[in-house]
Amino acid sequence: MANSKYEYVKLFEVEDKLMPSTWIVVRIDGRHFQQFSEEHEFEKPNDERALKLMNACAKATIEEFPDIVFSYGFSDEYSFVFKKTTEFYNRRSSKIVSVTVSFFTSVYVMKWKEFFLDKDLKSAPSFDARTICYPSTKIVRDYLARRQDVCHINNQYNTCLWMLIGSGMTESEAQAELVGKQKQDKNEILFQRFHINYAELPAIFRKGSCVFKVRETDSGISVKRGRTEVVIDHCDIIRDKFWKNHVNILKDK
Amino acid sequence: MANSKYEYVKLFEVEDKLMPSTWIVVRIDGRHFQQFSEEHEFEKPNDERALKLMNACAKATIEEFPDIVFSYGFSDEYSFVFKKTTEFYNRRSSKIVSVTVSFFTSVYVMKWKEFFLDKDLKSAPSFDARTICYPSTKIVRDYLARRQDVCHINNQYNTCLWMLIGSGMTESEAQAELVGKQKQDKNEILFQRFHINYAELPAIFRKGSCVFKVRETDSGISVKRGRTEVVIDHCDIIRDKFWKNHVNILKDK
Amino acid sequence: MANSKYEYVKLFEVEDKLMPSTWIVVRIDGRHFQQFSEEHEFEKPNDERALKLMNACAKATIEEFPDIVFSYGFSDEYSFVFKKTTEFYNRRSSKIVSVTVSFFTSVYVMKWKEFFLDKDLKSAPSFDARTICYPSTKIVRDYLARRQDVCHINNQYNTCLWMLIGSGMTESEAQAELVGKQKQDKNEILFQRFHINYAELPAIFRKGSCVFKVRETDSGISVKRGRTEVVIDHCDIIRDKFWKNHVNILKDK
Amino acid sequence: MANSKYEYVKLFEVEDKLMPSTWIVVRIDGRHFQQFSEEHEFEKPNDERALKLMNACAKATIEEFPDIVFSYGFSDEYSFVFKKTTEFYNRRSSKIVSVTVSFFTSVYVMKWKEFFLDKDLKSAPSFDARTICYPSTKIVRDYLARRQDVCHINNQYNTCLWMLIGSGMTESEAQAELVGKQKQDKNEILFQRFHINYAELPAIFRKGSCVFKVRETDSGISVKRGRTEVVIDHCDIIRDKFWKNHVNILKDK
Repeated sequence: MANSKYEYVKLFEVEDKLMPSTWIVVRIDGRHFQQFSEEHEFEKPNDERALKLMNACAKATIEEFPDIVFSYGFSDEYSFVFKKTTEFYNRRSSKIVSVTVSFFTSVYVMKWKEFFLDKDLKSAPSFDARTICYPSTKIVRDYLARRQDVCHINNQYNTCLWMLIGSGMTESEAQAELVGKQKQDKNEILFQRFHINYAELPAIFRKGSCVFKVRETDSGISVKRGRTEVVIDHCDIIRDKFWKNHVNILKDK
Repeated sequence: MANSKYEYVKLFEVEDKLMPSTWIVVRIDGRHFQQFSEEHEFEKPNDERALKLMNACAKATIEEFPDIVFSYGFSDEYSFVFKKTTEFYNRRSSKIVSVTVSFFTSVYVMKWKEFFLDKDLKSAPSFDARTICYPSTKIVRDYLARRQDVCHINNQYNTCLWMLIGSGMTESEAQAELVGKQKQDKNEILFQRFHINYAELPAIFRKGSCVFKVRETDSGISVKRGRTEVVIDHCDIIRDKFWKNHVNILKDK
Repeated sequence: MANSKYEYVKLFEVEDKLMPSTWIVVRIDGRHFQQFSEEHEFEKPNDERALKLMNACAKATIEEFPDIVFSYGFSDEYSFVFKKTTEFYNRRSSKIVSVTVSFFTSVYVMKWKEFFLDKDLKSAPSFDARTICYPSTKIVRDYLARRQDVCHINNQYNTCLWMLIGSGMTESEAQAELVGKQKQDKNEILFQRFHINYAELPAIFRKGSCVFKVRETDSGISVKRGRTEVVIDHCDIIRDKFWKNHVNILKDK
Repeated sequence: MANSKYEYVKLFEVEDKLMPSTWIVVRIDGRHFQQFSEEHEFEKPNDERALKLMNACAKATIEEFPDIVFSYGFSDEYSFVFKKTTEFYNRRSSKIVSVTVSFFTSVYVMKWKEFFLDKDLKSAPSFDARTICYPSTKIVRDYLARRQDVCHINNQYNTCLWMLIGSGMTESEAQAELVGKQKQDKNEILFQRFHINYAELPAIFRKGSCVFKVRETDSGISVKRGRTEVVIDHCDIIRDKFWKNHVNILKDK
C-alpha cells in the first residue's frame, strides 16, 4: 500500500509501551454516572442490579482477556490487573486501555436487560479508563487495598446520607450533619438512629466485588479437575488471608 | 478521605497530557472485525447496514463531544478530529481515548437493531483506539487524505476480490490474480470482466463517510438560521474544494 | 554480540522521540550557580566576564550543532532552538538534551581561563537542561519573548537590590524595600537615589544575548559572500523588527 | 513575576517523572570518542590514563550525588545506579540525565591534566546520556551483568585486533581474521601467536571498573569507623559473590 505522499503522517504516532515486568492495572470509571443513575432510577445508596451488571461485565472481560488475573470493583468503577509478564497488544497503553473499556461497555449495554428487566436504556452509558503500572506485588496489593478502603469510606458515608434523607432531611441538611464525622461516629448514627448494624449490611455493598479465576488447587473452593473457573466474591482483600488462600493470583509468571 | 497508608499508590499514575495547540485525532478500529463480520454475515465487499451503523455512531459521538470538529470513517474504522484548542479532559490522552471509544461502542450496541432489524448481536463488538497529535492544519489534512486514500485502495481491491470470488474463483485464486496489479489494472478487471465502472459505485463505498457540523454560513448547505447541524457526506476530502467550502472546520479557534 | 541471557534489559529503554515538525528548544540552567558565583566572586548584579563566557559557549554550541538556528541567554541560562525539521539524534529527547548540555559544559570549563584570567575553577560547574517542543513559529517566538521578559524583570530587580545594598542596606532591608514595587517604581529608585537611567545600562545586561547565524543576504549585516557567520547580539527579540530583518532564522525548512 | 502574555508557553513543558520505586540508571556514552581518542593519541586497545580519568569522574559524580549507590564503566561509557527510593530532582528524567552528564563532563575536562600530563585538550569532549528504569533488583543486576559482558566481549575482540595489527596486518586484514571467531578462538589466537594469557591481562581492561561506597560493616574492606568511602574496584559483578559481600548496595531503602 504505497500511498507515499501522505504516509509520513504515521510518524506522529507515539509508541506508548508500558514498562516490562510491571503489573498493569486498567481502571474503568463511569462517565456522568451520577446523571445516568438518576435517569435510570438507581436505588440509593446502592442498586444491587447495577452492581451485579458491573460484575457480569467484569466476568465477561476476564473471560475475554486471559492475561487479566484479578479484578475488583464497586459503585461504577472496576480495576483489572494484567499479569506482570503480559504481552497483550505489545504492552501498548492506548491499545490496552481502549480495548478493555470498549469491551466492558459493549457487554454493559448487551446485558442491561438481564439486570434491568423493566427498564430501557435511555442514554448511552460510557466509561473512562486509565492504565497504571506497579513494579512490585506489594504495591499492586496496596493499590487494591486502597480501592477497597475507598469503597468502605464511600459506602459508609452514602449509607448514612441516604438514611438521613429517608428520615426527612434535605440532602444538604444530611451533608451538613455528616461533616467532620469519623468512621465510628457514622456507625453510631446508623445504630442509634436507625438500628442498623453496619457490619451486617450485605458484603457486596461494604466490600465491593472481586472477580478472578480459581483452579482446583486453590484452597476452599471446589472447581472441577483441571478446570479454571471465574468466581465473583465480596471478600476482604486488604488483609493477608485472601492472598494466602490464592497465591497463584499475583504470582510472578 | 485520608486513607493515608495506601494513598501513595496514586503516585504511580502518569500525567499523559497531549501537547497544547495541536489537533488531536482519535482513531477507532474494530477489534477482531473480520470474525465479527463473518459471525453476523456482513455482505462482501461492503455491508451498507454496517457502514450506516458506523456513521450513526460517529454522528452520536460528534453530538456528544462538542470539541470534535470533523470525523471520517470507512469499513470498521473512524477518525475523530478534536479542535486544536480543546481542553477536553485537560487533554489527557487516556481519558480522551477511553471516553471516545467507550461512547462509540455503547451507541454501536444500542443502535445495532436499527440497522440489523433481523439479526441479534451474537457477541460483544469492541474497538481499539489511539490518539495522535498533529501540529498544523496542513498535516491534519494530510492525515485525513491518507485515510481516504487507504479507503480507496482497500475498497478497489476488495471489490475486485469479491467479484472474482463471485465468478467462481476460490479466495486464494482471487488473491493470486490480484498480486502486483496496479489501480488501473483493477479498474480494467472490473470493467472487462464484470462490466462494472468503478467510478459509478456508491460514493459511501469509494469515498468513505465524513460526519461534521455545518452552520448556515457554510456554502451549499441549507441549515436553519443560527443552527448547527451534523451532516453525513461521502465527498472527496483530498482535494482543496471541500475545505474551501468548509473553512470553519479546521480553523484555528 | 550475542549475550543472550541479559539482552532483555534493553527492552526497558524508552523511546522518547519528540513530535515531528515542531521546534525543539533545549534550555540549559546553571545548577547551584548562586553558590558557584559566590565561590568565584562574580560581580553583582552582573558579571560581564561570566556572561561573555556563557556567550562563547553558546557560540561554540551553535557551531557544533548545525541544526540549532537560534539561541538566547542571560544570567546562567541559555535556550537553543533546533529547526522544526531537525532529525538530530532521530529527535530522541534524552540524546538531544544530554549532548547539548554536555558539550556546553565542556566548553565552559575549557574556556574559563579565557574570561577569568586570574581565577582558577574551584569546583566543577554544571547545568541542568530540558527539551520543550513548540508546534508553531508564533509560539516559539512567544517562548523567546518570555525569556527576554524574565531577563528584564530579573535584571531590573537585581540592579535595584545591589544598588541599595551598595548604599549601606543589608540584603534583607533591600529586599523589603522592593516588595510590591512596580517596574516604574524601580526605575524611579534607580534614577532618584542613584542617578542611574536604567535604559542606559549596557544592553547585554538589559536584553540578554542572542547568538545566531547570519548569511550575506540578511539585512544590515555584512558577511562575506557565500559565508555564514555566527553573531552575538543584544537586541530586542520581543518586537517584530528583529524577526523581519532575519526571516531565515525561523523559516520552515 | 506576572509576565502574563507569554506565560502560557510554560504549558508546553512535559512532566517526565520516572516511575516511583524503580531503580534509575543513567548511562553516559562518549560522543564521537573514536575521533576524540585518535586526536589525543589514546593507546590501543586500552589507554590506562583515559580509563582512570573516567573512573575519577565517576568517583566525583558518586560523591556529588548521594543517591547514586553504584556505578560501573568501561571504555568511554559509565552507568550510574540511583537508589530505588531516590527523590532526586523529583525523579524528573531530563533533570537527572542532564545534571549527571553535565557534572561528569565538567570533571572530565577539569581533571584531564591530572591524567594526561603532557597533552592539552584539543577539542571539547562530550557525552550523551539516557535514563532507564528497572523495577526489581534482579533486573538491575542483569543490566550490570550485561554491561560487564559487553566489556568482556569488546575488550577481547579489541585486544586480538590490535595485536594482529601490531604484528603487521592492516586493520581490515585483522578484522577479516576475526570474523566468526568465538571467545575460545580468540583466546587461542592470543596465546598461540602472542603468548598472551588473556586471563592475566589487567582486570581494569577485562572487567571494567566499579565505583561504589563502602561502609565499615562491608566484608573484606577496612573503612574507618562510622565512615563511608568511595572505592574503585575491577571485580566480577556477574556472579553472586560480589553482591553477597555488599548487600547494602542494592538494598531497598
